[in-house]
Amino acid sequence: MVGELWAEAKERAYKRMKKDLEIGYLDKDIVDILEDFFSLPYAFTKSSCSGRVTAVDADFPWSRDGTIVFKVHRPISSEELIKILDKPTSKRLWLNVQGPIFHVVAKDLESAFKVLEMARKAGFKHSGILTANEEGWLVELTTGVRANLLLKVGDEVLVKPSDSLLKAVNEVLLQGKRRLEALRQALREAKGGLELAGPSEGALRLEGVAGQRGEDLGGQGDKTSEV
Amino acid sequence: MVGELWAEAKERAYKRMKKDLEIGYLDKDIVDILEDFFSLPYAFTKSSCSGRVTAVDADFPWSRDGTIVFKVHRPISSEELIKILDKPTSKRLWLNVQGPIFHVVAKDLESAFKVLEMARKAGFKHSGILTANEEGWLVELTTGVRANLLLKVGDEVLVKPSDSLLKAVNEVLLQGKRRLEALRQALREAKGGLELAGPSEGALRLEGVAGQRGEDLGGQGDKTSEV
Repeated sequence: MVGELWAEAKERAYKRMKKDLEIGYLDKDIVDILEDFFSLPYAFTKSSCSGRVTAVDADFPWSRDGTIVFKVHRPISSEELIKILDKPTSKRLWLNVQGPIFHVVAKDLESAFKVLEMARKAGFKHSGILTANEEGWLVELTTGVRANLLLKVGDEVLVKPSDSLLKAVNEVLLQGKRRLEALRQALREAKGGLELAGPSEGALRLEGVAGQRGEDLGGQGDKTSEV
Repeated sequence: MVGELWAEAKERAYKRMKKDLEIGYLDKDIVDILEDFFSLPYAFTKSSCSGRVTAVDADFPWSRDGTIVFKVHRPISSEELIKILDKPTSKRLWLNVQGPIFHVVAKDLESAFKVLEMARKAGFKHSGILTANEEGWLVELTTGVRANLLLKVGDEVLVKPSDSLLKAVNEVLLQGKRRLEALRQALREAKGGLELAGPSEGALRLEGVAGQRGEDLGGQGDKTSEV
């Protein structure tokens, strides 16, 4: 049955988070957010990332068989960018900037929609329910914040490592961190609501969501004039 | 009630698609896929894009207040790339390549999971249920296929418009078109299944989905060594 093992899974996930924190795996930027999710009686997080800049040697930015040659969860410096460009590259060298991402396991469908609604308000506009199993309802919270720059192909450097490029990369990352701040705020409000009046109802009423997204397609055939 | 107006909404959407096709809005690449979705008794598409290359003058690749200066749903040529670079730019000029995307409205939750499962098998690994309302369950089918290259900041050109860059851009687009082909195949099988034996059961059994995705986070704190 869907969600049957939710409470056990939550306990396991909490212990794992505490262990990760101890070992130093956890990104300090989001420990409080994870704690806040765990403190909700209807959710917990399973995996998370606060947003990051990576450089990957691979055919495509999303390739899983590539090699990560650089990874940080903070803005990068001019020296770092130059160092990245100096790396020998066998395929293509991509500089990937990605916003925060969370996998939340909700207790039931209503809780899943509650989490979704909160996330969307905080700017996590590409969030959705991925699946359901005996642990609960898996919700991915994610944003449209990203860039994937092609730096090199083999030995051929394709970009000028100028201050303008560096600034753009770091601004993309910081846009993600801002949404983290909005999520932090939304979680605080959700917790406050719980303390004051119990969980709110009507989470299913999310109207016109597709229209609010960055990728508003407007209709069949991609005919809109949006960005 | 969720899905109450589904049949009416489907009819409206179908008429709209036919009209879009007549006017020439519809991308020929996906007309058959849309028709296949409509022919399922439990789904219809609301908006769609077969994948595209756009150039956008904006602070960020996802900005909605930017200006699209170029848009095609096919590979671009060297001449086009050079022309794009020649455009006067007021903010930043991004070259965005994105894979296909569909918004599907499913009749009920089980149908939504059925669509999700089919999509995920076809490589639409970032798909999820966005919301539910009286029209039904809105499912977004999307891939991790994308690149967002920073071409210019103001007058400053940041990339070398070499053949390697062009090749990478077009290969990203074609990766998206390939997943379209896989979806086409999956839809055919779904339709075949319907004709032979009626809709299949057990759509809720989607295990371990997060682990199959390009962004396998592995646990709290983003500690994996994946690409």
